[in-house]
Amino acid sequence: MSERAEIVIVGAGTTGLSALREVRRHTEDVLLINDGHWGTTCAAVGCMPSKALIAAANAFHTRENLTEFGISGADGLTIDIPAVMRRVRRLRDDFVKGPQSVRETLGERAIAGRARLAGPQEVIVDDRRIRAGKIILAPGSTPVVPRPWRAFGERILTSDTLFEQADLPARIAVIGLGAIGVELAQAMARLGITVAGFDALDTVAGVSDPKVRDSAIAALQKDFALHLGAPAELAAQAGVIRVTAGEGTFEADAVLAALGRRPQLEGLGLDTLGVDLDDRGQPPVDPNTMQIADLPVYLAGDANGDRALLHEAADEGHIAGRHAVATRDEGLQRRPAMAITFADPNIGMVGVRHADLDPDTTLIGEVDFARQGRARVMAANHGVMRLYARKSDARFLGAEFCAPAGEHIAHLLGLAATHTMRICEMLAMPFYHPVLEEGLRTALRDLDRQLPDEGRSDLAQCPALGIEALE
Amino acid sequence: MSERAEIVIVGAGTTGLSALREVRRHTEDVLLINDGHWGTTCAAVGCMPSKALIAAANAFHTRENLTEFGISGADGLTIDIPAVMRRVRRLRDDFVKGPQSVRETLGERAIAGRARLAGPQEVIVDDRRIRAGKIILAPGSTPVVPRPWRAFGERILTSDTLFEQADLPARIAVIGLGAIGVELAQAMARLGITVAGFDALDTVAGVSDPKVRDSAIAALQKDFALHLGAPAELAAQAGVIRVTAGEGTFEADAVLAALGRRPQLEGLGLDTLGVDLDDRGQPPVDPNTMQIADLPVYLAGDANGDRALLHEAADEGHIAGRHAVATRDEGLQRRPAMAITFADPNIGMVGVRHADLDPDTTLIGEVDFARQGRARVMAANHGVMRLYARKSDARFLGAEFCAPAGEHIAHLLGLAATHTMRICEMLAMPFYHPVLEEGLRTALRDLDRQLPDEGRSDLAQCPALGIEALE
Repeated sequence: MSERAEIVIVGAGTTGLSALREVRRHTEDVLLINDGHWGTTCAAVGCMPSKALIAAANAFHTRENLTEFGISGADGLTIDIPAVMRRVRRLRDDFVKGPQSVRETLGERAIAGRARLAGPQEVIVDDRRIRAGKIILAPGSTPVVPRPWRAFGERILTSDTLFEQADLPARIAVIGLGAIGVELAQAMARLGITVAGFDALDTVAGVSDPKVRDSAIAALQKDFALHLGAPAELAAQAGVIRVTAGEGTFEADAVLAALGRRPQLEGLGLDTLGVDLDDRGQPPVDPNTMQIADLPVYLAGDANGDRALLHEAADEGHIAGRHAVATRDEGLQRRPAMAITFADPNIGMVGVRHADLDPDTTLIGEVDFARQGRARVMAANHGVMRLYARKSDARFLGAEFCAPAGEHIAHLLGLAATHTMRICEMLAMPFYHPVLEEGLRTALRDLDRQLPDEGRSDLAQCPALGIEALE
Repeated sequence: MSERAEIVIVGAGTTGLSALREVRRHTEDVLLINDGHWGTTCAAVGCMPSKALIAAANAFHTRENLTEFGISGADGLTIDIPAVMRRVRRLRDDFVKGPQSVRETLGERAIAGRARLAGPQEVIVDDRRIRAGKIILAPGSTPVVPRPWRAFGERILTSDTLFEQADLPARIAVIGLGAIGVELAQAMARLGITVAGFDALDTVAGVSDPKVRDSAIAALQKDFALHLGAPAELAAQAGVIRVTAGEGTFEADAVLAALGRRPQLEGLGLDTLGVDLDDRGQPPVDPNTMQIADLPVYLAGDANGDRALLHEAADEGHIAGRHAVATRDEGLQRRPAMAITFADPNIGMVGVRHADLDPDTTLIGEVDFARQGRARVMAANHGVMRLYARKSDARFLGAEFCAPAGEHIAHLLGLAATHTMRICEMLAMPFYHPVLEEGLRTALRDLDRQLPDEGRSDLAQCPALGIEALE
């Protein structure tokens, strides 16, 4: 049986659904093929359930500060982890409802099955062979679990299986301290589980700025032990898993593998496209069009191995979808990079990372939240934020941070980065009092002091009063 | 004894100290005259102690959500109000330290005493008569207490005396529900005190948008009873104060007068300047220079009755100081307005208020946080944010809100307002997931939908996926 469609989309996650929406503005001659779960990874196993776990963990953790605030009885608080997990799943199940309806809307144009390319304009799914004008591939990603670890069976958890657990064991090793590992390690530790975190790299949550790194490690160490800079090895031992890395060792009842997510390219048939694949199996993809080489094929979302984040996946689906239906489109300027790890304090980056700066042409401004007024009032005075600016034109380049309300300040910086604002243009905005954003202002003023005085005459120059409580 | 100084500054609060800093860039021939407390009102009796009270109150209030998160034992939590008050004062005392050192730095150029003008270039303090090149007046403000209420003695509290209390009584009426009244009423209610709030106006916290108003009232009513739209009257009754307003009545052990702050102009000698004073006793002041008419006299900060907020006070001192030493300065463009009431949810506004919009030329975009994904995960899904944009050029005008993380989103909007951004320029920024800023994006998209399609081709157009959890 041979069929035809103007557009075939493979994958009904965030990217595929975003592409579908763009395509349907121009044509209904579209097929959506999906294998497994219909809907976004994020709602099902990613950001949403982890944020629900974090919310419960942080609510329980507030008991640590209650005495400081004059509140007694914190010792009597107990947490029911099975109840926490039930709430996580209840919210999750509600969040995933939306996308599943897409299948009903599309009717026969939604196909359940595993798609495989048979050249740049042909897709095979089960016994169906579909000729396509254009193909948008968005098969997503899957958690990495080293093959030998499979021997440990259900004691190896991933973000795909963690939230399915009815209860959590007493001791959990988290291997891989990127965003997901850090978030879940801290949350589980705050739920009362003994957690040890491991990473082969000498940093956490993708931080590249050494000062931010030190601040983040110091903050996380209050909740769990960190073993950095050496690869973790697992060994079975009398009913537990012994995790060893360098000098560090930990007896775990379960191991959360948080080594990242791998693009699901296996069996996708990229080899039939006639383009070179790199050593990760990736074809060349233009990040502004999502097009593979000059073929009528697009690879978007987590699957292309670049910016595996929900908001980028939505953008990539949008870009691929509109380019597929209107090829004159020259491609779209991407948004500035942004990454947030929802730890306490938040850890993250905006724009250009410290590691990618040219030290000869860059200035750095800094604020230490330890003495920041509002942070002290809230007993949240931990962390540091570092801002990067170009010497030559005083423009904001990027930031890394481990800071209270970092997720919010990151968005303000994201707006500034989108419009490559000058530092004085950022200092021209109102900063209320007392707010954590005054800490951002301290860092901006720190940058401004290092820039040549332009004899400007505006409120951006209104200086600090030299009163700690007002910064 | 007659003295001379190039510049005389009256008042050593935020405004006076900010002016002093500008003046000292150009001359040391300056005298600073201050009556009473040296240093910022904000640190001593304003923002900082109230934020400390709010932090304790909200920490205690989290027990209401603990069951939802799977945590037991919340019933056993108790709060020690004297301990709360001690922490507030401890933090306050630390915050006020900084400004007091100004006196030592200035030595003889700092004069303790009450200053009175004797014409546009003369100041009298005690028996000293000082000729001044320029005079900057920054005498500040004082809480309003209706004269008849003084009969109730110490049962009438203000923000000046509240934080000096060793303990708080069981029943407190808060009269005046502006920012200060709302913050303290909710905080005291959450500390376990029975609170009733009264305001002659039919709104709270200065909200003018009817939808935001309804949302704010609904949120606050969870914590205390509100009596709006009728003036409150006080009557002594068997050891308590009976507060009556319209149909509402409340028996209070104490009354917090939160009717606002009045400029401290009494006895300042403004009548010697030879300019007309309005019915509030205010001379004409240029908001971009702080100059009174064309005299060598400036009136800045709370004292001029305009924008009585710390960050505006600092700006006004800066403006007055630099204009006084460099009169060619044409004046400075003020920052967009911003006001935040640190209630839960935060209530506030940025830029143009709803009441000041021209409905014929304005579009309104809205988000309801009740169904917003991240807000639901945090069990903080209450509130609404409304954004205003100009129809003709799609530029952001302002916002009012009662929203979780409103204080943070307000700053993002403050940056946008400073640069009068277009809605599409705001939608071009990265919005991470899952964040409360996605709620802002929903409101921006709501505006964008009402604007003419410009055939733009950028990521600002990347639409909602129609998946609730991702908005």
